[in-house]
Amino acid sequence: MNLEVTLGERAYPIEIGVDLLAASSILSAAVSGRQVLLVTDSNVAALHAQSLERRLDALAARRLTVVLPAGEANKNWPTLEPIFNAMLAARFDRSCLLIALGGGVVGDMTGFAAAIYQRGVDFIQIPTTLLAMVDSSVGGKTGINHPAGKNMLGAFHQPRAVIADLQLLATLPRRELAAGMAEVIKHGAIADCDYLAAIERDLERLRRCDPSAMAPIVRRSCAIKAQVVAADEREGGLRAILNFGHTFGHAIEAGMGYGAWLHGEAVAAGMVMAADLSCRVDGLGRDEFDRLCQLIAAADLPVKPPEWSLERWLELMSTDKKAQLGTPKFVRLPRLGAAVVGRVPPASLAQTIAVSSAGAQR
Amino acid sequence: MNLEVTLGERAYPIEIGVDLLAASSILSAAVSGRQVLLVTDSNVAALHAQSLERRLDALAARRLTVVLPAGEANKNWPTLEPIFNAMLAARFDRSCLLIALGGGVVGDMTGFAAAIYQRGVDFIQIPTTLLAMVDSSVGGKTGINHPAGKNMLGAFHQPRAVIADLQLLATLPRRELAAGMAEVIKHGAIADCDYLAAIERDLERLRRCDPSAMAPIVRRSCAIKAQVVAADEREGGLRAILNFGHTFGHAIEAGMGYGAWLHGEAVAAGMVMAADLSCRVDGLGRDEFDRLCQLIAAADLPVKPPEWSLERWLELMSTDKKAQLGTPKFVRLPRLGAAVVGRVPPASLAQTIAVSSAGAQR
Repeated sequence: MNLEVTLGERAYPIEIGVDLLAASSILSAAVSGRQVLLVTDSNVAALHAQSLERRLDALAARRLTVVLPAGEANKNWPTLEPIFNAMLAARFDRSCLLIALGGGVVGDMTGFAAAIYQRGVDFIQIPTTLLAMVDSSVGGKTGINHPAGKNMLGAFHQPRAVIADLQLLATLPRRELAAGMAEVIKHGAIADCDYLAAIERDLERLRRCDPSAMAPIVRRSCAIKAQVVAADEREGGLRAILNFGHTFGHAIEAGMGYGAWLHGEAVAAGMVMAADLSCRVDGLGRDEFDRLCQLIAAADLPVKPPEWSLERWLELMSTDKKAQLGTPKFVRLPRLGAAVVGRVPPASLAQTIAVSSAGAQR
Repeated sequence: MNLEVTLGERAYPIEIGVDLLAASSILSAAVSGRQVLLVTDSNVAALHAQSLERRLDALAARRLTVVLPAGEANKNWPTLEPIFNAMLAARFDRSCLLIALGGGVVGDMTGFAAAIYQRGVDFIQIPTTLLAMVDSSVGGKTGINHPAGKNMLGAFHQPRAVIADLQLLATLPRRELAAGMAEVIKHGAIADCDYLAAIERDLERLRRCDPSAMAPIVRRSCAIKAQVVAADEREGGLRAILNFGHTFGHAIEAGMGYGAWLHGEAVAAGMVMAADLSCRVDGLGRDEFDRLCQLIAAADLPVKPPEWSLERWLELMSTDKKAQLGTPKFVRLPRLGAAVVGRVPPASLAQTIAVSSAGAQR
């Protein structure tokens, strides 16, 4: 069930399966004889670090572990420093390997540390959330936040491998699993209507984290993201379609205070708004709109955004990082499985906001 | 007198001439209509920032300046923060441009800031030292120091252009000019005996900073470095020949305390030692050794290292960043204009150290 990601000068495998922490041959080969630093966070460490450490100790020339404080609020430079201090104190050289065991924050920070340690060393991602498996596994984005904005400092740095052990999802809180499903649904909505049908068909098994249902989903979502990113590695144009639901979603996250809604929850409600906009501007059928809404709701995700005025929405969307000066661009769906990007008539946007936001509740 | 550097996916020009701060067309084209941040240091700002700022203000959509405290001791993360704070406060986006006006420290820090700001933006180097013109202009190395070691955090990030205005060298302290000449002599020694002869011939004019003598020197040194780096952009093998004199030189810098000897001064004495080693191991003629020593001395550079015991030398060289485990590798010259890299018989190394270090004085 592996997948090869080909980006820039580098290709790397995404290994998808069960019991990979213990049995991944890619991990064994990569670790063997090297200086290895395992980076994880305080939540994940308690659940999964020990067994992985035992395996690394049997293979690596040397193994260190750094446990970061969990949470987006710690995704900053001071939290990176213990990583560099540990590696330098142990005289890790350019042939060392970092391993990120955790969600998106751990992956982004570990990848960034690997990108800049002695001008770049190898790293491997072992994502422990569905979101990290289907989203941050592909694309090479790494980085940290700055008080003035999210992900403002970072680098494009591809991992040497991603190991998606589906068993790790068994310990994932239900709400986090649903948030990951938002990105999975997004991949179907923007790129593949058959995939959307498969998600609908297997939804109950996915909600139970059945590995045999989850494996093809992780694989297909990574493949769709890889295809989009490969066509536009440095975010010139096409890659923008991955932001379906995100202009509205970022406004929800910012307006509610970061952390109140999970990113995937905000994107879910944002996708409903973007689909409504697509009906008005691009001829998406109302039956298709309803179908997408039903899937989002069935995946335990919100379909209604907060109840805000038009002015409030516009203000929140104008500070979105990806917005150019002036009105924001929106990703829309002319039909399920296809996406376009661009500005929209202000009146249509106002209608979408009025309808979506009226009597809104989460 | 321009030079095109072709590395990886990017090529960029090095513009070499006089009055370029005022007249460079490359600078005009690059700055026009953009958000621009000028980064310089407290020494250079007083000499050259004002006239450049006037020019930028006439061309750029917006121009900010950040003045860093001068000196290697400030090449660290806290000193970078005002750069990011200024850019974020002014909402600089991914289309912005950074300009480094200064020596190697300003260039390395500005390049690193550009490498990681929003995962990478453009930068231009305007080197104000001979060393920065002939060394850090080519190769794409950027970075900062960590308390545990020099240049431990960084990135490979190529500039969009380098503008070498030879008039800026007129304000360079004599000792700094000589330190830059050490790298120029090194380029001749490792790669081009005809170039070495040209340096010998024009040395008096170079010591006076005559632009008509300096221009072909900057051009040829950059071309030699570009040629070596192009063959080995990420420092696998060949690039190591650029470290001629550096294993001994780094030991001198570390042993004397960083800053006591300028890098170029330490490399100069290190090249004499490495040439002595070349006579013993690789058949370099003693006449060639004498010729190199005479040129180094005539360029106002030291030919004698500090007087240390063999044990002290070995200890200092074992902590050199580029040394692998075990005995260090040395770049040697089988003849002037050609270089080899590798380990040497310990007895030969001991002889070189004994002879070079005996009755040593700077």
